[in-house]
Amino acid sequence: MKISISLNRFKKGLGAVEKIIASKNTLPVLNNVLIKVENNQVILSATDLEMGINYYLGGKVENPGAITVPGKVLASFINNLNDEKINLEVKNNILLAQTNKSEASLNGISADEFPIVPKVEGKEILKIKGQDLKTAISQVAFSASFDESRPILTGVYFVADGGKLKLVATDSYRLAEKTLDVSVKDKINFVVPNKTIQELHRVINGPEEITIVLSENQIMFILPDMELTSRIIEGEYPDYKQIIPKNFKTKAIISVHDLVNAVKTAGFFTRENANNVKLSIKKDEVGIEATSSQLGNFKSQLKSQVSGEDNEINFNYRYLLDTLNVIGSEEVSLEVVGKLNPGVIRPEGVKADITYIIMPLRS
Amino acid sequence: MKISISLNRFKKGLGAVEKIIASKNTLPVLNNVLIKVENNQVILSATDLEMGINYYLGGKVENPGAITVPGKVLASFINNLNDEKINLEVKNNILLAQTNKSEASLNGISADEFPIVPKVEGKEILKIKGQDLKTAISQVAFSASFDESRPILTGVYFVADGGKLKLVATDSYRLAEKTLDVSVKDKINFVVPNKTIQELHRVINGPEEITIVLSENQIMFILPDMELTSRIIEGEYPDYKQIIPKNFKTKAIISVHDLVNAVKTAGFFTRENANNVKLSIKKDEVGIEATSSQLGNFKSQLKSQVSGEDNEINFNYRYLLDTLNVIGSEEVSLEVVGKLNPGVIRPEGVKADITYIIMPLRS
Repeated sequence: MKISISLNRFKKGLGAVEKIIASKNTLPVLNNVLIKVENNQVILSATDLEMGINYYLGGKVENPGAITVPGKVLASFINNLNDEKINLEVKNNILLAQTNKSEASLNGISADEFPIVPKVEGKEILKIKGQDLKTAISQVAFSASFDESRPILTGVYFVADGGKLKLVATDSYRLAEKTLDVSVKDKINFVVPNKTIQELHRVINGPEEITIVLSENQIMFILPDMELTSRIIEGEYPDYKQIIPKNFKTKAIISVHDLVNAVKTAGFFTRENANNVKLSIKKDEVGIEATSSQLGNFKSQLKSQVSGEDNEINFNYRYLLDTLNVIGSEEVSLEVVGKLNPGVIRPEGVKADITYIIMPLRS
Repeated sequence: MKISISLNRFKKGLGAVEKIIASKNTLPVLNNVLIKVENNQVILSATDLEMGINYYLGGKVENPGAITVPGKVLASFINNLNDEKINLEVKNNILLAQTNKSEASLNGISADEFPIVPKVEGKEILKIKGQDLKTAISQVAFSASFDESRPILTGVYFVADGGKLKLVATDSYRLAEKTLDVSVKDKINFVVPNKTIQELHRVINGPEEITIVLSENQIMFILPDMELTSRIIEGEYPDYKQIIPKNFKTKAIISVHDLVNAVKTAGFFTRENANNVKLSIKKDEVGIEATSSQLGNFKSQLKSQVSGEDNEINFNYRYLLDTLNVIGSEEVSLEVVGKLNPGVIRPEGVKADITYIIMPLRS
């Protein structure tokens, strides 16, 4: 292999693939990035066996070939170089990297030992704007579970039907559902591991359209310069619709900024108390309260536009903050049935395309 | 105690004192900040028994008194409040804090249990501009030792004589010496613990003059709104002057930006090799080299203005980077006697008020 490529594009490509590369995997080749020339194109590939990325670079190819070298080391090394071009050449499983001022030789492992990052041969099922998908991920994925005992909840559920795509995540204590408009009308659903979703969020970097390809047990997200391939999580996603309350007795509209401040401050008084913050809704105001036998107690009154009867509900303040931090509106509506029913939070005054459910705590 | 103070000034004061407050000290009152009214003034105090801060706040005093409350909790809580004023009142060792929208009660400990942060009753020995002292600290203190087996080297040495104040720090592998102009002509010297120095660096926040007061075993830095008091380290500082080479055989002037890049990159290749980077100085260029049996090797050539004979020297690349990161000039001069003698680095093209010495490594 002998190629000459733009150092900037090489940095960008390595930045896209390096995060999924292990640094201390017992199978050494999994710590490596594959640099390969195919059809006169330079491809960088990385995989953790559950997901993989192929990144396509332009460049001047003198000789084809391939090699793998330690990914984290290569990226750190390359990121410190300043030049326009870099020449890469392989000799005896050693990668020679040369810029105008510097040269390095990196010990590699033969490309034959690298697991193939497969292209998913399936059906192109969706096209979606990158920025929309990125926003949806940031608003939903934090609600997914980290508990591996119910694998299906550790992913983000994609469900499309009649021109709407919903992204859903829940850890059974709270739930997020975001609705996006898409052109496809077919019924489709699949669950993507949260690790893949986080990686996807990281690499989406512009307004370009992303194409989603689905096969029986794999999914591929096609971005302008790269493909992200992943397994999907098998199993039936729970019928989450049934836990979203269909009506409410009390509705309060509250400023997100004021609520975040009050809830954060209340949070300091909840440490011995399972993060328990009490919301009391009365005419024209919402009270935020927390009590700690050790520290003391806290109370704040927020002006609010309230309809319906007086009510109260206790939440884990962290779930409330997680939601408020990504909801993206200046005001939210909080709908409460009673202290034993889930609370519903939606953005207010903008398109209500997202619904959050938080289960109540005992007071 | 019953007072009304500006919330912003209270935040600022807590920010200044809270960093030295423990959060899990076995003596609970050391986790606390003291709020005290004295001579119609509000004073915040914190101490870790080695150093202490008194911070002076204006405010409206209705009743005098004092209390201590958990410092980290108070600061976190106060920092989340948004209002103009805060009212503080003490009842039965409980601090009631009230703003327009919120109120909290915080369990405290009687002020009688709080160790006194003494005012140092000594001689006013120096006045120095805050910004000059802050810069000097950032250029010198990183060279102090962390090894408690030689306590004197864990501090920063202040030595004044004939209108010059020098700040010196060394861990015996490298040394930094900064010279400042001061008005005092007396001979004075003392060693300040690095922890105090770091705290001082943190709280200096403007061009105001700082007054230094020295007693037999304590030092006090007087800033506009506060005093920082600390023990000094007893003992004789080593005669560091003797290790600074008086002449050299080779001198190279190098761009800091280029050298930092090359040294950082070389650093990746030194992990199995005690951070050892080789500098080879020849006519018009300096070569930076590092070798790793595991990873491979690296070489970079930098243009340089060289005088004297060809030479080479090996450094710990981290010491080199530490120095280059704070030297504050665009070019540095490197003076080398030979591969067994310390190298001398100074800023080039600006006032050479700082000297760095790095001991050589074996090649």
